[in-house]
Amino acid sequence: KMLGRVLCTVLFVGALPSPAAASQGHISVVLLGATGDLAKKYLWQGLFQLYMDQVSSGHSFTFHGAALAALEPGQRLMFDVLKKLSCPPDEPPNRCAVLKDQFLKLSQYHQLKTAENYTALNREIETLVGQEGLKEAGRIFYFSVPPFAYTEIAQHISSSCRPPAGAWLRVVLEKPFGHDLESAQQLAAQLAGFFREEEMYRVDHYLGKQAVAHILPFRDQNRQFLDPVWNRHHVERVEVVLKETVDAKGRTSFYEQYGVIRDVLQNHLTEALIFLIMELPANVSSAQDVVQHKLQALQSLLELERSSAVLGQYQAYDSHVQEELQEARGYVSTTPTFAGVLIHSNSPRWEGVPFLLTSGKALDERVGYARVLFKNRAYCTQSGTLRDAGHSQCKPKQIIFYFGHGALSTPAVLVSRNLFQPVMPKDSWTEAEARSDLHIFGQPLSDFHMYSPVKERDAYSVLISNIYHGRKDFFITTENLLASWAFWTPLLASTSRQPPRLYPGGVENQQLLDFEMVSGGLAFSVAEPAELLRPGGQMPSDFRAIQSKFRQSPLVSAWAEDLISQLASDMEQAAVSSVARSGHFHLALSGGSSPVGLFQRLARHHYSFPWQHTHVWLVDERCVPLTHSESNFQGLHRHLLQHVRVPYFNIHPMPVHLNQRLCVEEDAGAQLYAKDIAALVANASFDLVLLGVGTDGHTASLFPHSESGLQGAASVVLTESPVKPHQRMSLSLPLINRARRVFVLVLGKGKHDITALLSRVGHEPSKWPISGVSPSSGQLVWYMDYEALLG
Amino acid sequence: KMLGRVLCTVLFVGALPSPAAASQGHISVVLLGATGDLAKKYLWQGLFQLYMDQVSSGHSFTFHGAALAALEPGQRLMFDVLKKLSCPPDEPPNRCAVLKDQFLKLSQYHQLKTAENYTALNREIETLVGQEGLKEAGRIFYFSVPPFAYTEIAQHISSSCRPPAGAWLRVVLEKPFGHDLESAQQLAAQLAGFFREEEMYRVDHYLGKQAVAHILPFRDQNRQFLDPVWNRHHVERVEVVLKETVDAKGRTSFYEQYGVIRDVLQNHLTEALIFLIMELPANVSSAQDVVQHKLQALQSLLELERSSAVLGQYQAYDSHVQEELQEARGYVSTTPTFAGVLIHSNSPRWEGVPFLLTSGKALDERVGYARVLFKNRAYCTQSGTLRDAGHSQCKPKQIIFYFGHGALSTPAVLVSRNLFQPVMPKDSWTEAEARSDLHIFGQPLSDFHMYSPVKERDAYSVLISNIYHGRKDFFITTENLLASWAFWTPLLASTSRQPPRLYPGGVENQQLLDFEMVSGGLAFSVAEPAELLRPGGQMPSDFRAIQSKFRQSPLVSAWAEDLISQLASDMEQAAVSSVARSGHFHLALSGGSSPVGLFQRLARHHYSFPWQHTHVWLVDERCVPLTHSESNFQGLHRHLLQHVRVPYFNIHPMPVHLNQRLCVEEDAGAQLYAKDIAALVANASFDLVLLGVGTDGHTASLFPHSESGLQGAASVVLTESPVKPHQRMSLSLPLINRARRVFVLVLGKGKHDITALLSRVGHEPSKWPISGVSPSSGQLVWYMDYEALLG
Repeated sequence: KMLGRVLCTVLFVGALPSPAAASQGHISVVLLGATGDLAKKYLWQGLFQLYMDQVSSGHSFTFHGAALAALEPGQRLMFDVLKKLSCPPDEPPNRCAVLKDQFLKLSQYHQLKTAENYTALNREIETLVGQEGLKEAGRIFYFSVPPFAYTEIAQHISSSCRPPAGAWLRVVLEKPFGHDLESAQQLAAQLAGFFREEEMYRVDHYLGKQAVAHILPFRDQNRQFLDPVWNRHHVERVEVVLKETVDAKGRTSFYEQYGVIRDVLQNHLTEALIFLIMELPANVSSAQDVVQHKLQALQSLLELERSSAVLGQYQAYDSHVQEELQEARGYVSTTPTFAGVLIHSNSPRWEGVPFLLTSGKALDERVGYARVLFKNRAYCTQSGTLRDAGHSQCKPKQIIFYFGHGALSTPAVLVSRNLFQPVMPKDSWTEAEARSDLHIFGQPLSDFHMYSPVKERDAYSVLISNIYHGRKDFFITTENLLASWAFWTPLLASTSRQPPRLYPGGVENQQLLDFEMVSGGLAFSVAEPAELLRPGGQMPSDFRAIQSKFRQSPLVSAWAEDLISQLASDMEQAAVSSVARSGHFHLALSGGSSPVGLFQRLARHHYSFPWQHTHVWLVDERCVPLTHSESNFQGLHRHLLQHVRVPYFNIHPMPVHLNQRLCVEEDAGAQLYAKDIAALVANASFDLVLLGVGTDGHTASLFPHSESGLQGAASVVLTESPVKPHQRMSLSLPLINRARRVFVLVLGKGKHDITALLSRVGHEPSKWPISGVSPSSGQLVWYMDYEALLG
Repeated sequence: KMLGRVLCTVLFVGALPSPAAASQGHISVVLLGATGDLAKKYLWQGLFQLYMDQVSSGHSFTFHGAALAALEPGQRLMFDVLKKLSCPPDEPPNRCAVLKDQFLKLSQYHQLKTAENYTALNREIETLVGQEGLKEAGRIFYFSVPPFAYTEIAQHISSSCRPPAGAWLRVVLEKPFGHDLESAQQLAAQLAGFFREEEMYRVDHYLGKQAVAHILPFRDQNRQFLDPVWNRHHVERVEVVLKETVDAKGRTSFYEQYGVIRDVLQNHLTEALIFLIMELPANVSSAQDVVQHKLQALQSLLELERSSAVLGQYQAYDSHVQEELQEARGYVSTTPTFAGVLIHSNSPRWEGVPFLLTSGKALDERVGYARVLFKNRAYCTQSGTLRDAGHSQCKPKQIIFYFGHGALSTPAVLVSRNLFQPVMPKDSWTEAEARSDLHIFGQPLSDFHMYSPVKERDAYSVLISNIYHGRKDFFITTENLLASWAFWTPLLASTSRQPPRLYPGGVENQQLLDFEMVSGGLAFSVAEPAELLRPGGQMPSDFRAIQSKFRQSPLVSAWAEDLISQLASDMEQAAVSSVARSGHFHLALSGGSSPVGLFQRLARHHYSFPWQHTHVWLVDERCVPLTHSESNFQGLHRHLLQHVRVPYFNIHPMPVHLNQRLCVEEDAGAQLYAKDIAALVANASFDLVLLGVGTDGHTASLFPHSESGLQGAASVVLTESPVKPHQRMSLSLPLINRARRVFVLVLGKGKHDITALLSRVGHEPSKWPISGVSPSSGQLVWYMDYEALLG
């Protein structure tokens, strides 16, 4: 009935555009959490905007607010909100007034608590549509509820409120989408039990911010200018920043669980970054291509390490937590309220370009932007005075997507005038006047082409419109969500016990939160002043490598990450001294998973490693083709060799694949490798052999209870592993023991038992081959992380 | 007698320091060209300064001015100069007056024209020394004469004026030291006939400029600060600049032969650059180590190409040349009076860092400096206002060695305050007051720690003192000179026919001489305005690749450098399209010298080449070990593979070395390669085969009058070359003809005859194997330079 009335009204109001001739069907919008904060602040307004925009699209609408409250009070609360809906300045007031009246009539409140409530809602919608003789086009369920309620609601919708065949279902989900990779996977798996991927619209409201939403169109429309410069040769850095002046007061129950990385970086800033760095699809309006390219960009990001981030916490945070969460006075939180993170991509386009993501509360200004800063490729011959005049190529060049607030207090797109005049869609963006009184990043605004939106729209209006239009590229797919969590989770894990730097808040922060790129990671620029140090004494953050003895040989022990960085440094030092002594560095490396982190560290942090003079040998190899994923060499190549410049001739994979067969005795691969070693390595004494230890005490591919390779003249042998692939090639123990240095790397809890055992037993290589490692005149050093050593 | 008088005087003048107890022996300084401009302006003053500084060193001195003029007029001219010698402000006036008097008495004029004159001079010195009962310590001959006179004078000195055994000979030579590599080698060879290397002191007066001379000591004394940042990770660029306001008027007879590159860049600016980029010896006062490290730095510079430079000429230059050299009115000179050059080093420290050398006449200011600009590695969290105050890490960071003139009008060393406070020798450099009214490179002077010399010394005084002290590191060794010419000569050759951009001169140049780094080279930032174009019509600079047909296939022809850049682009395009189509690019490359330039271009200019997806195969190989210098693979590795990232597994050297022997039929290397091709290359059809042509019409390693590989089923064959090494492995003609694209590169005059012949003959592969190249369904393109095509 209600609908009928509205449709009539529409037909009689001349000021309104007439509805399309053919009905496009009916759309029911259900807003769950209709009386909550988000709904009050943004969502109802967005729905009203949708109605204003689409009233003559041919679709008819009803809007169903829902909450746990009973009908009467809920209705009252909801209509109090609806009455306050505002008319946008660009809308003729009388059209808006009429539409608002209609919108109110098309809106009703439902209590949604029990299964019956959902069934009733479904019945109501069906009845309504049936009465009016309409076809259902689709239903939108907007979840503006806490995540713990998701599963139950999802179940109800899926079982009782699905639209009839031929009509679509769109469920709109709000963050948080989990807390780390594992919880996100769980949540995703639960939702997948109720909804198909194409039915889910995960909101990151940054994708609705006008400046963020325009990144891809901008890149598309300005391809001619950007193609030559949108790469590592021209881009100096990319910054994505959200600075807030507010603190976490009043929100600590949420904030204490999440912190700034989960709250802002994992989602909003990552999304903006990805729009900047993803490969541009030929057709940017293909949601599928956009989503696919975003995923690839996420997957191209190099894994974060503890040193990738600097973390801060405003000084009053602990007291806010103590008050709001009734924690004891001495309670110390390590939740960061400020983070700067350095990200790199391994794509050919962006390799080496620093991406800096920064966000924090209680900072000195409120501003958000994504900024691409270009390298200065010019030399300006004329003197300084001339250089500063005009649009000299020597002035900074940048493109800024300004989210809002700050000096400009409007969303904007800015392009340095010495770059190019961008193509902008005239109907939605308009060029602002060049104001030279305002400065941005140290330059007068007149140095930029600056564009601001013709109509300022809040993010939720934009997103609600995109839900209506089914533009899935404005939302986070499950795959992309998990890829983002996969990227962020290791950093969250490795920094969880790290005490953040304390900062006073506001302008008093001074330069306390400035940070710098230092040897592949970040560090604060200035030392922490003593008065800001936490009064309750230092946390045990300073896990410095400890030195002692293991099996009569030096032992270096630390947490895994520190251990690996120590080992990598020691290896570089060994390499440098070998090259200085003999001109070469003969390095024999083991396969397996333990050294992967080491290889990555060597590839990414040790630019001065003398790779040009290093020969890389294998300690052992599985009898599979070299390109096989189980090949040790393949892993070594992927994690190390393809990133550094070892001359081709200095790379010595084991010849497990000869005459198109694997490790056949007659092909004499082991002898061939032994000959190569004899020919190139002086005295067959490697400068450094890196070993691991198996839980059974094996090392290299020398296994317990097998005599092969433990003694005798053969320097390279074929062996049998108890696990697949069984056939192996390995350096022999006598050859290993000729080395100048042998480093043994042992990582992880799983190795604690064998470590404990080895600390007690003597030289029994046939039981535990590793116990036979004892360089005759070289040095043996054990590198064990705390987990392996202490369990 | 004269000497005796002086020594007595010295003993009686109380104001002077007493001479050392034991005599250090006598030094005779002979200044050839004693009445010339340089001598008048700097050299006598420098010698006087030497005398003032060393009068109490224990050495005794005599100074012998020499020229072609007869005794009487020569003497008069010379003493007119000597009388005008000035006392430095830091010298007590009466000490100076006494010393000047002594200096005049110790100086005499000689006519040095004939052999007898030199014999007489020698006799005079011997007599003088003998009379005073002194031992000769050494003789300095300063050649301040035109280079054409060098050989004769050198011969006379060497045969008649060598000091007795136990005393040293130092001959001081002034530039120009040749005109290009060849002439420099000739001159060096001539001089080597008369003097030993350690006897020669080649002057580059920039090495005596205080700011230049302090580069190495600065780097040494500030190792603690510089070690972490003096590399490609922290340095954004290095600029070495000498701007002059004067033009070449009055000097065109010299200038027209030399131009700005030979006049300034090859020597002065290169020397300053090398001081900045050379590896720092452990002991910077070891002249031998310094000279050796300088040589290595010179040799690390990548070869310059035509596109490495931008050249200019001030507009009035032609008229100056016409006037002074009596050239016809229409005479057009291509001598550059302005140059900007982009240099790269392939050292691990500096790889990828642009070094910009710039100099010019008729510019808007007179200034010289060497400047190291650091990357901004910081993110400054606080807002702009705070950021600009204090010494924020986000402000530009630089170290400047300021040669003099310009805004500062003094030599200086400047270090940004946000870098570090440098260690400076207090006795010779003093910190200047922070003046914020002066700006340098857009920053107030107060942003820098600035040091200027305690005593300003002109370069020649510094150098004369260094000659006396035997500091060979302040002079140019023969080896370093030739290395510098070897570096600059290719650029001089390739730009000799290039018309420089005309510029009006002075401030009117505006941004006309600004330039930018563009795809590995330089280009002016703004287009040349029409009114400045040369009125006499364009020079034939625009050697664009021309397209036509050769043997019924497309022919691309151009001058070699343009041809290679076209071929490299075409190869990249082929690669990109193959990867887009199939995911791979199978590229078979030939060895030999022709493709070397191509390989270098691919390595240096084609950053977007999809190397990750490229498989590199060999077209042919010599039967030598892969690491042998004659191996095709070795050349390919050196010039291409070691510079790009082709996965190890995608590199396919030919298996010429199996079972520790070369190309033995039974080892079936050819069959092995054929199998690899069959396994990896779809349909055994390479995406691109690059071939060359021999003067005998051979291609790949398929030789005339040998049927091997011309037909049949074998895709890889062993062949015999008429030249050593005779044994070869080669792709067969049928396999080559299966390729999708075959590009044939033919370069140089030497190939003109075979090219002419091939243009006439038909398909006769057994006579000329190249004539059998005719892809069955692929494309054949000939790339011939003008020399090969036109002779």
